[in-house]
Amino acid sequence: MKSYRKELWFNTNSRREFINITPEVEECLRESGIQEGLLLCNAMHITASVFINDDEPGLHRDFERFLEKLAPEKPYSQYDHNGYEDNADAHLKRTIMGREVVVAVSGGKLDLGPWEQIFYGEFDGKRRKRVLVKIIGQ
Amino acid sequence: MKSYRKELWFNTNSRREFINITPEVEECLRESGIQEGLLLCNAMHITASVFINDDEPGLHRDFERFLEKLAPEKPYSQYDHNGYEDNADAHLKRTIMGREVVVAVSGGKLDLGPWEQIFYGEFDGKRRKRVLVKIIGQ
Amino acid sequence: MKSYRKELWFNTNSRREFINITPEVEECLRESGIQEGLLLCNAMHITASVFINDDEPGLHRDFERFLEKLAPEKPYSQYDHNGYEDNADAHLKRTIMGREVVVAVSGGKLDLGPWEQIFYGEFDGKRRKRVLVKIIGQ
Repeated sequence: MKSYRKELWFNTNSRREFINITPEVEECLRESGIQEGLLLCNAMHITASVFINDDEPGLHRDFERFLEKLAPEKPYSQYDHNGYEDNADAHLKRTIMGREVVVAVSGGKLDLGPWEQIFYGEFDGKRRKRVLVKIIGQ
Repeated sequence: MKSYRKELWFNTNSRREFINITPEVEECLRESGIQEGLLLCNAMHITASVFINDDEPGLHRDFERFLEKLAPEKPYSQYDHNGYEDNADAHLKRTIMGREVVVAVSGGKLDLGPWEQIFYGEFDGKRRKRVLVKIIGQ
Repeated sequence: MKSYRKELWFNTNSRREFINITPEVEECLRESGIQEGLLLCNAMHITASVFINDDEPGLHRDFERFLEKLAPEKPYSQYDHNGYEDNADAHLKRTIMGREVVVAVSGGKLDLGPWEQIFYGEFDGKRRKRVLVKIIGQ
């Protein structure tokens, strides 16, 4: 069994942002040389997400409105977590979007459907944060 | 290490539908001959879900109402994604339900709790769509 | 390839409760002797969750309010599932929080970010329920 590990770093300009990280994850898989296995890609921070969906800007605006409806950022005082912080909404938004994806590796490629793209979802940005890529297989 | 891959195809009669796919996934595991490992089962489409819950029709109607409350299908014009499409709500609903499940394989069986059943959740149906089953182990 | 399996049992005093299970999961990893691999930790019950977030009591109260807003426990009669049961809301809450986490194992340790802690989320407690830990690797 082979294993591979890499951290990817991100620093967004805005509080919330979606970044298509499929090319970086594919590069990890190439580096690993693994042909058959499973790839885990997870946010290492609890106010960020890794998820799979469509790379379509209109949909991303829909996600923003959807998440603001379910877990609004403001008023900050509505959340008990916001004593010394202001990011309680980011913890809730990331919960809806998910922490991680597990992707099959087949024939040395990410085994994704036709429209599946891997995204980093930032909900409390403007600082350096990490994503972990771990691959096991042969 | 052994690995196994299979696609399962579905074509629902209605826009939204839940299908218990546990028997098909068990059949994949038998075919693989893997005794100990991890099984990934994921939707390959971004308007569908694979999730684990109870096979109880009342609960499935509750899920339908819950998802329609959080991400209503209509009016279509409420979503930016719906310029050429009408399925933005399906992307959001699938996000709540999840893309994938990872199930332990122990003693050649799916290592599920007493009521755990694996479902394909369709949110934009009436066309052929795929689920991927990938198993690694020994 | 090595594999390891253990069930962790919980019995909460209240209907809903979050328990930090990171130490128990770390102990499983030590017992397994696995240095590089993937660890799956999942609820075996469909009204409970395993998720990763912050061990901060204010945030946990925020989660409780958030979940009660999205899928309120009462009135019980609002859910079709509640013919003979009263736990439909628990199925929905667990869906939002997620069934499972997959964590990388690197250098014999859980490969978690600085604030990542693993929680058991109970939504229909006061009875014995199980979590599965499965690890594969070498």
